[in-house]
Amino acid sequence: MTSPIRPFPRKLDRKAGVIDLGHGAGGRATAQLIDGIIRPAFRNPLLDAGNDQALFPAPSGRLVMTTDSYVVSPLFFPGGCIGDLAVNGTVNDLAMGAARPLYLSCGLILEEGFPIADLVRIVDAMAAAADRAGVTIVTGDTKVVERGKGDGCFVNTTGLGQVLAAVDLPPSIDRARPGDAILVSGPIGDHGVAILSQREGLPLKTPVRTDSAALADLVAAMVAAVPDIKVLRDPTRGGLAAATNELAWGSGVGVELQEAAIPVRPAVDAACELLGLDPLNIANEGRLVAVCAPDHADRLLAAMRAHPDGVDAAVIGQVVEDERRFVRMVTPLGGTRMVDWLSGEQLPRIC
Amino acid sequence: MTSPIRPFPRKLDRKAGVIDLGHGAGGRATAQLIDGIIRPAFRNPLLDAGNDQALFPAPSGRLVMTTDSYVVSPLFFPGGCIGDLAVNGTVNDLAMGAARPLYLSCGLILEEGFPIADLVRIVDAMAAAADRAGVTIVTGDTKVVERGKGDGCFVNTTGLGQVLAAVDLPPSIDRARPGDAILVSGPIGDHGVAILSQREGLPLKTPVRTDSAALADLVAAMVAAVPDIKVLRDPTRGGLAAATNELAWGSGVGVELQEAAIPVRPAVDAACELLGLDPLNIANEGRLVAVCAPDHADRLLAAMRAHPDGVDAAVIGQVVEDERRFVRMVTPLGGTRMVDWLSGEQLPRIC
Repeated sequence: MTSPIRPFPRKLDRKAGVIDLGHGAGGRATAQLIDGIIRPAFRNPLLDAGNDQALFPAPSGRLVMTTDSYVVSPLFFPGGCIGDLAVNGTVNDLAMGAARPLYLSCGLILEEGFPIADLVRIVDAMAAAADRAGVTIVTGDTKVVERGKGDGCFVNTTGLGQVLAAVDLPPSIDRARPGDAILVSGPIGDHGVAILSQREGLPLKTPVRTDSAALADLVAAMVAAVPDIKVLRDPTRGGLAAATNELAWGSGVGVELQEAAIPVRPAVDAACELLGLDPLNIANEGRLVAVCAPDHADRLLAAMRAHPDGVDAAVIGQVVEDERRFVRMVTPLGGTRMVDWLSGEQLPRIC
Repeated sequence: MTSPIRPFPRKLDRKAGVIDLGHGAGGRATAQLIDGIIRPAFRNPLLDAGNDQALFPAPSGRLVMTTDSYVVSPLFFPGGCIGDLAVNGTVNDLAMGAARPLYLSCGLILEEGFPIADLVRIVDAMAAAADRAGVTIVTGDTKVVERGKGDGCFVNTTGLGQVLAAVDLPPSIDRARPGDAILVSGPIGDHGVAILSQREGLPLKTPVRTDSAALADLVAAMVAAVPDIKVLRDPTRGGLAAATNELAWGSGVGVELQEAAIPVRPAVDAACELLGLDPLNIANEGRLVAVCAPDHADRLLAAMRAHPDGVDAAVIGQVVEDERRFVRMVTPLGGTRMVDWLSGEQLPRIC
């Protein structure tokens, strides 16, 4: 399918060119950028129609909508870049609503002087990630700000998804009850450590790659096994500590975690030791936390472990009664300590 | 309705406080910012649920989705600010799909040091504009970047709308045919001149305010009169010149505009004279261009003029056959000149 809007020969220098203010002005250069790079990368009939809005038949049932802006620094890091992160992150926020992701939008804010070659890498990574997640990027917008008024490339993705038909009561942060089991889908801290190791030039013996991945397929397998998952949350900014505290506050309960049960890669543990960080506070981009009734925990765990994105899943704790809404960690020796939210900034611009 | 997530007393200083990196870290300070300022401003049950995604029943029929990031500078200008602009602009992109706007997302990228009082003004303006447009802000995200890596506040809004039931074939940029009439809903250039006069401190005799407004209600009135509107486009970045050139390219036609018929306020004309600009290239944020069959033009014009947002509407030209897809302007003396896209950057960060 050919785009109806192709007024100019493509004059973009994809190898050595840089973004200038004209690329954001809405005129000739904007059309060249959109038509030469962005539209071809995301190519699909809805986008190719060339309108400022995408048109599609309404899906049936219940929808979820979510948005995230991505400002990660550096833009490229071990195992990924801001492009696939921006697709996976928003797909995951849809999946945490027990939804199948359908459509994404893509809003770019580029800084004057940004290399066009880097933009090509980013949109290509977005397109590949969208393909893998089965989601279509149907509409977009690109703005350019002057040098020193941005930081290379910021990406916003907003997603629309359809709640899986098997779900009766969708997962929600207020549905955890004392006795419920808490599960995590895999080792925590990989994404944050990957970013930090790149940023700080850490000489890690075992390189740590981001865990960035789309979890919608894992969630579909989980829902097939246990339709009534009470809470789903991806522990991104603030890590597992923030996710469990949100859970405690959202549901008016306490949380008790078993330290020995929480999967952490040795390389991540080592890096955290070196940096004086706690893996509990570190962002993940391909992990989820699930809460279900105690009777459903074995079935849910088995379904997670049977899926490639959940092979290292584990039950890590339980919901308890606690009016103070505390999250406590039981250590291997039987002691307990509080798991608090991070109060300041430990790891800026991790996602 | 009370938000379920309220773990902390509100300690934000709404008058003298500034954004710091902790407000974007996903921990305690983030929750304070979201819960103390953003959620209360947009207050609605979907947002109050405290989940990372909004859940709602699927509307029937056909949907449209659109996204825009707003990087306007300055953030506050005569008649508006980035907040209402971000709501109106995205509502208008939905309306240009002949859709009733339903839901918006709000993605904020704040710069460290940004005054919280300014953030309050912006989100309050967003809430008021959303109220006026009958749209609900159902999900959001807030990121913070280091000082010097942003420019105060960038806003992304993404919208979901439902195509009006009376519409059979929705408007699309490829539907203009020779003979069709081209209409504009009001005087052009107000928004761009308002921004520029603020930016440059121009001593205008008559102050020019932005035309920023939500056009969904006007479009509903237009569709009620003429269900088959062929093209709807809001002439934002690049102005009327870009909008008509996109039309020509999208539909494979020529465009002939009558200069004397295009409404421009005297104050805008005077400011353009002073600045060496052409009102045709200047961004509008509350105007639309419509194309309809010649037989429908009178009815459409009457419907526009009967609506408060279209009182100065005019037929400004017609679609003609032209393989070169040129946009030509007929001057009052009967001469013609080409109306080209702007090729470089004339007015950076106008929206």
